[in-house]
Amino acid sequence: MDRKTLDSQILVQAVAGGRAERHRFEDLHYARLTETVAGHPRGSVVLPDGVVVPGYPAIARIQSLSNGLRQQFQGPFWAEEKIDGFNVRILRHQDRVYAFSRGGFVCAFSTDRLPDFLDPGLFDAEPDLVLCAEIAGPDNPYLEGSPPDIPRDVALFVFDLMRQGRPGFLPHDQKMQLIARHGLPATRTFGRFHPTEGQALRQLILQLDNEGAEGLVLKGEQDPIRAKYVTGGSNITDIGVCSEQLLDLPPAYFINRLTRLALFITEHGQHGDADRERRLGRAFLAGLDRAVAGSLAQGRVDHRYRCRFREYRNAQHFITHLNQTGGHRIRIAPGTPREDNGYWVLEFDRIFDRMTGTLATALDGAIQFD
Amino acid sequence: MDRKTLDSQILVQAVAGGRAERHRFEDLHYARLTETVAGHPRGSVVLPDGVVVPGYPAIARIQSLSNGLRQQFQGPFWAEEKIDGFNVRILRHQDRVYAFSRGGFVCAFSTDRLPDFLDPGLFDAEPDLVLCAEIAGPDNPYLEGSPPDIPRDVALFVFDLMRQGRPGFLPHDQKMQLIARHGLPATRTFGRFHPTEGQALRQLILQLDNEGAEGLVLKGEQDPIRAKYVTGGSNITDIGVCSEQLLDLPPAYFINRLTRLALFITEHGQHGDADRERRLGRAFLAGLDRAVAGSLAQGRVDHRYRCRFREYRNAQHFITHLNQTGGHRIRIAPGTPREDNGYWVLEFDRIFDRMTGTLATALDGAIQFD
Repeated sequence: MDRKTLDSQILVQAVAGGRAERHRFEDLHYARLTETVAGHPRGSVVLPDGVVVPGYPAIARIQSLSNGLRQQFQGPFWAEEKIDGFNVRILRHQDRVYAFSRGGFVCAFSTDRLPDFLDPGLFDAEPDLVLCAEIAGPDNPYLEGSPPDIPRDVALFVFDLMRQGRPGFLPHDQKMQLIARHGLPATRTFGRFHPTEGQALRQLILQLDNEGAEGLVLKGEQDPIRAKYVTGGSNITDIGVCSEQLLDLPPAYFINRLTRLALFITEHGQHGDADRERRLGRAFLAGLDRAVAGSLAQGRVDHRYRCRFREYRNAQHFITHLNQTGGHRIRIAPGTPREDNGYWVLEFDRIFDRMTGTLATALDGAIQFD
Repeated sequence: MDRKTLDSQILVQAVAGGRAERHRFEDLHYARLTETVAGHPRGSVVLPDGVVVPGYPAIARIQSLSNGLRQQFQGPFWAEEKIDGFNVRILRHQDRVYAFSRGGFVCAFSTDRLPDFLDPGLFDAEPDLVLCAEIAGPDNPYLEGSPPDIPRDVALFVFDLMRQGRPGFLPHDQKMQLIARHGLPATRTFGRFHPTEGQALRQLILQLDNEGAEGLVLKGEQDPIRAKYVTGGSNITDIGVCSEQLLDLPPAYFINRLTRLALFITEHGQHGDADRERRLGRAFLAGLDRAVAGSLAQGRVDHRYRCRFREYRNAQHFITHLNQTGGHRIRIAPGTPREDNGYWVLEFDRIFDRMTGTLATALDGAIQFD
């Protein structure tokens, strides 16, 4: 079947119009779309031969399980685990395997680490396959939180398959066959459900909540509809890992999670749970305490990120990317990248400007009008 | 001494320029300043004879007690209780006593209730006196919260005195003499402190926190500087009474209180208090539960306010004001105002539009992208 390509003239116009950007990662010259271009969504990657790797679409959220299933799904759907990590698309181009971020950048960190998780021989059998995967774990350079069952480093979980130049995902059965045949690490699949099976899914989400998991992604078997539904606990976890950035994140980050938590509590009849109340209060206060302590001790509020690379030059690529996108807010930890057990460990701090400034002023005794 | 007046030509220009508005309350024709005019601050009231009642100034906040005292005060200051209510300025004009809101409107509710709290004979002895007072209690038409030691209705607390047409407040000793001479209900005064007496004030604010009080207002004895400093608990109380309006209030309402609470905890070494964590979590969740319950039960999220009037016509004036300022968001409870024990009891609901819409959509099972 023909692979979708983007005409080079259209790409030139898109770049000129600010709807696409050209980038280079070592020998790979590619473009990423920052807006929809010729029907290809934002985040799509244009390879040197013009082949388009589709952007990974945003997944809609339901906040009511029973009503959401009935409203959104006409037929059966598959329930898979939603994992608290970051999304990459993995593909081979001219004998090299790359991982692209949601925005369509080559991710130097993920690209470096792929051999730890995948056998590149996979692409000899399936040269145009695109793996959509979540990378999660405490030692990742993007996110403050990570799943509780990944004690160190990161892990990779495939949850969708695409083909280069082809919109849409492979159907569930083909995906599962390829995952099995090539022994790919994959997200957990909990089975096939009908929109009327709200009770079974309620049991499932409560079990996931107990495990500390993030939630479910529901994928229509026939209809292209997909929806995510998260656990009550994931909202508290998210607040806890980000409350030291309280003034730097958009307020909706916190407001939306509080609202979702309240809807979850209502749906599952969990009102008045003193332990949950304590965990929510602690999620706000523990992070804020860290922020105030940082301000008092070193005059700034920041968060330390750590990740490890197989190759030194990929660590350098990643540092270049950090400095280009994070500017003055990034401080590479002295003495890193340092060699450790065959890897290069990078540590860096991301500084939260508004927390730093606001707390310094308040602790100094300044007045404010509000 | 001459009383400051606003030239009628300047007032005409200010009204034309949108910096002042003319209003009428029964026979009283007055103007309120919506911006500074000829040096008179926003909220100032211009009486029919042109005499200006100064707007009550915003009080600056300190968030660090020790450093704040040293930074802001050069000499001694008085510490008074800050009460969780609304601010009025009370004065007599041509044989009638009126209460003006912070914005400079005649408040029909407060004006109606003044005889319950004050002997109007006060103004025979002091005709140009202006009482600056807080009105607080569970049965007030503006605020969701109220001090724990006012079990019902409202109470009035004088905390500053001014004179009509004179900028500035009466000095502390004159204020206390007039309060004593006329038996005025007043806020608690905790004494005179020096900027070095941080330890004594720390004890005081912890005692107030235990009582469930809102905090302190510190008033320079010589310098005109004033500052407020609130208890840790007041932040949790404020969150608790307003969390059912989570999406309707500016997010800074919640974000600022969380930040202040963390600074209070640090200043007073109260880290890791499980009971406080639980109270904070409950403050968010109890209000949100009420909101979700309201959405499920009646398709809207609202709050019921109750207050009572001595005179039926004042209740009607207040309803007119509510409808003019609150529009479709106000629903007067059927059957009110109703007579009860010599008063007219008014009940009304204020509807929270965004909570109502967002929860209805979410509970119905709709998807959203975020």
